[in-house]
Amino acid sequence: MSESYLPSLLTDSPEAGFQLAIKLSRLGVKFTQPDAEVRDRLRPQYAQNADSLTMASQVVAINFQTVAAANNYWR
Amino acid sequence: MSESYLPSLLTDSPEAGFQLAIKLSRLGVKFTQPDAEVRDRLRPQYAQNADSLTMASQVVAINFQTVAAANNYWR
Amino acid sequence: MSESYLPSLLTDSPEAGFQLAIKLSRLGVKFTQPDAEVRDRLRPQYAQNADSLTMASQVVAINFQTVAAANNYWR
Amino acid sequence: MSESYLPSLLTDSPEAGFQLAIKLSRLGVKFTQPDAEVRDRLRPQYAQNADSLTMASQVVAINFQTVAAANNYWR
Amino acid sequence: MSESYLPSLLTDSPEAGFQLAIKLSRLGVKFTQPDAEVRDRLRPQYAQNADSLTMASQVVAINFQTVAAANNYWR
Amino acid sequence: MSESYLPSLLTDSPEAGFQLAIKLSRLGVKFTQPDAEVRDRLRPQYAQNADSLTMASQVVAINFQTVAAANNYWR
Repeated sequence: MSESYLPSLLTDSPEAGFQLAIKLSRLGVKFTQPDAEVRDRLRPQYAQNADSLTMASQVVAINFQTVAAANNYWR
Repeated sequence: MSESYLPSLLTDSPEAGFQLAIKLSRLGVKFTQPDAEVRDRLRPQYAQNADSLTMASQVVAINFQTVAAANNYWR
Repeated sequence: MSESYLPSLLTDSPEAGFQLAIKLSRLGVKFTQPDAEVRDRLRPQYAQNADSLTMASQVVAINFQTVAAANNYWR
Repeated sequence: MSESYLPSLLTDSPEAGFQLAIKLSRLGVKFTQPDAEVRDRLRPQYAQNADSLTMASQVVAINFQTVAAANNYWR
Repeated sequence: MSESYLPSLLTDSPEAGFQLAIKLSRLGVKFTQPDAEVRDRLRPQYAQNADSLTMASQVVAINFQTVAAANNYWR
Repeated sequence: MSESYLPSLLTDSPEAGFQLAIKLSRLGVKFTQPDAEVRDRLRPQYAQNADSLTMASQVVAINFQTVAAANNYWR
């Protein structure tokens, strides 16, 4: 039996939650472009472009909203 | 009687919820461009472009917010 | 008396809710460009462009958040 | 005493709420570009462009989330 | 002791809340580009461009969601 | 033991919350482009471009939604 790529939204800390938000953002890309080689080839295209980085940070921010709510904001 | 394309927002796990978010994102495209052949032709246009992939991941993130809230974050 | 174009946010099913989200997205366009002929002329501009379709799907996703919350996620 | 441009977020119906969302979207533009003549001159720039219309519809969708929540979704 | 630039999210009215949303949007710009002279120089770049104005209105809309929720929608 | 880069979402004031939202936005960039030198090189690319600044302000706005909710809007 293969492991789940997303067993839970609950994390021990805000930091782990932020890492999960990054993972979710990458999963969204992965399911649109499943070929890892292509994704690696595209990396310089956005990692060296300011607006692309802002866009990437925005997706993380949206996913972090979800993870933070799931964890009741680690209050 | 034809089956519903969206019978429920409830899923058994976060992973199934993420898959539903991807499905919702594709449905949003499908209803704007119903021609599957055109959609297939457009695929290389965005699957090979970093910003397009980030944008696609963002739509998934927004839909995942909805699905996660529907499932009370699988707490 | 003319009928309301948006009598309620409540729908019988998630599928009907998704259709309402699509309607809301089109209403947002209609009130900015009321001329149906112009809107029809613009259709190929976005229906054949991958990023435009992703953007359209994003608006549907945002409206679907509203409709889903209104319907308490059809739980 | 001048009248408020935004006396309340409460409306009698979803339709009136959608109109308020459109008004909020225009207010956001107005405060960035207060010159009505300039805004009128820019109108063809976006009213004839598919992606601009989608972007405009997105702002309406975001504001409609706020208005709908304020009205408890007119349940 | 210097005054806070953001003492509270609570406002007396929806209109004051909308003004606060505009202020928050400008603060977001200010902290990325602290040089007022540069910001002034950039103003014609977006105040005369339809899509830039729509984007600015969108940031205000997102901040207004926060302020409106903070004020329990001035119900 | 290294310190957490995100120990908590709770802050003493709205102003500190806004600063945390800015930090979260930068963290989202940092994890996509970990090379500080590259990030510094890209700075003029967006700090002198109106739309880039609006986009940056939008990411801050999204993160501020999360931080504000976590702090129950400092009511």
